[in-house]
Amino acid sequence: MTRVLVTGASGFVGRACLQPLLDRGLEVHGIARPASGDRNPGVSWHHLDLLDAEAVRTLCGEIRAELLLHLAWYAIPGKFWTALENFAWVRASLSLIESFREAGGARAVMAGTCAEYDWTTGSACDEFATPLRPATSYGVCKAALGSMTQAFARETGLAVAWGRIFFPFGPHESAERLAGYVMSSLLRGEPAICTAGTQVRDFLLVDDLGDAFGALLCSDVTGPVNMASGKGRSIASFLERIAERIGRPDLLRLGGRAATTAEPAVVTANVQRLTTEVGWRPGPGLDESIDRSIAYWRDRLGLN
Amino acid sequence: MTRVLVTGASGFVGRACLQPLLDRGLEVHGIARPASGDRNPGVSWHHLDLLDAEAVRTLCGEIRAELLLHLAWYAIPGKFWTALENFAWVRASLSLIESFREAGGARAVMAGTCAEYDWTTGSACDEFATPLRPATSYGVCKAALGSMTQAFARETGLAVAWGRIFFPFGPHESAERLAGYVMSSLLRGEPAICTAGTQVRDFLLVDDLGDAFGALLCSDVTGPVNMASGKGRSIASFLERIAERIGRPDLLRLGGRAATTAEPAVVTANVQRLTTEVGWRPGPGLDESIDRSIAYWRDRLGLN
Repeated sequence: MTRVLVTGASGFVGRACLQPLLDRGLEVHGIARPASGDRNPGVSWHHLDLLDAEAVRTLCGEIRAELLLHLAWYAIPGKFWTALENFAWVRASLSLIESFREAGGARAVMAGTCAEYDWTTGSACDEFATPLRPATSYGVCKAALGSMTQAFARETGLAVAWGRIFFPFGPHESAERLAGYVMSSLLRGEPAICTAGTQVRDFLLVDDLGDAFGALLCSDVTGPVNMASGKGRSIASFLERIAERIGRPDLLRLGGRAATTAEPAVVTANVQRLTTEVGWRPGPGLDESIDRSIAYWRDRLGLN
Repeated sequence: MTRVLVTGASGFVGRACLQPLLDRGLEVHGIARPASGDRNPGVSWHHLDLLDAEAVRTLCGEIRAELLLHLAWYAIPGKFWTALENFAWVRASLSLIESFREAGGARAVMAGTCAEYDWTTGSACDEFATPLRPATSYGVCKAALGSMTQAFARETGLAVAWGRIFFPFGPHESAERLAGYVMSSLLRGEPAICTAGTQVRDFLLVDDLGDAFGALLCSDVTGPVNMASGKGRSIASFLERIAERIGRPDLLRLGGRAATTAEPAVVTANVQRLTTEVGWRPGPGLDESIDRSIAYWRDRLGLN
């Protein structure tokens, strides 16, 4: 049974990857913070501070996983763009990949971000054609780590894919993120104050993203891979759809706050690599994705 | 008296920076490996493994330097391009700059490299106009660290300049590097087997480079700065000049070995930032630079 080590396994994206990995027949070892809620019982759980390089080295030596899915990062909404923790996580991630390889690891998939790309081009981000020009420390650190892990892969023979995440939403999302905020507000009967929402983004259900990471991990594709639906839509139309499904369009206040200058007009993805080379296909359409997310929020808010 | 912490202070470039820093009235603290030869007596020496983040934090807290000149890196000739140590030095450098800042540091100058640039353009490398497209792990790691230190500077208010080194030669150079090899061979009466040397490079006396680092550190210029002469010349003409000054042109075997495909035709520097913004001017011309280097090698080889 092939063993996979998953970091950030109790996080928003990480927990959505677990069942897809189990479904692919992998023995899943998840690293999580101690107090991180309900756990997938099919997973072997390990508690560890990933910033402690020695502890990471020891654990890698004990588990001796063939595969690594590295999703852990500093991700506090609103703060992660500029936080100094980004630099610590670059160090931790380099230590992790070194320890993983030293313990016999063969293939790693790591989480990159669409924030690595130049967001001023206006066209769909392409893994190779779109320049990397991150505007934030988060994007700079992810881009730097991405380039270094590719170099590390060339030097060592480790297979490494770098999955650039775009705009996931869905179960276990923070209420401080866009869709989580709007869904939780509307379900509680409170207004959701948003920008005009003319910005175009690529939204993807986080369970779908988790399945895409499972597919990427079990493929032999290396290098950067956009992890997205390939479909752009305006934030306004996305949120209006949410409000309709909840039945409270009256509470959605588009244009209720000004967009910051840092919000680019269009951030969408070319997903040729993911769909053709990895062979992954998105699951449910947008309506079903939204309905699943709403069902999660009803449950979380005790409205069922 | 302003205090400066210098890493790599016993190295090829580092030792050439010490007198220029002392001449500018700084209190110089040098970090060096224990067994690294003669020492500038005007410098306070500290022995430390820079890969030990805790030891670095302790030392930074003790010295509380206002300025940092970070030159240390893995630099074994022939090996450093691909060595896994490059990744460890990125981690060490991030830890160092964090510890330096936490201890009250205000301004840092760090060593980048011309190997960060796209070497296929054929024109003089410009800090902002030339794309970064490093072809080696050394270049990838330096470019990644450079981008992260600039982001770190933006987040913290630390002033950071990133000095990209081109092709220094001169006293204390390794005999495995180009000029060191040719000078030591010819002075010993042995042939120096070289490529045809049609490649154009920007050569600079290492003492001159040290003075440029001193000028950059004492300026308020931030961001990337090319550390070079601004003059390109072919390797062949550079080596022929060396052979003439030594008086053994007969021993220089240009074309005696094939150039590798990795050797680009032209790597030169636009030095507008260094000369105009920093206000630095190169010292001796090429002939005097070569003569000084030859004098060093005569002494090192016991030929005086």
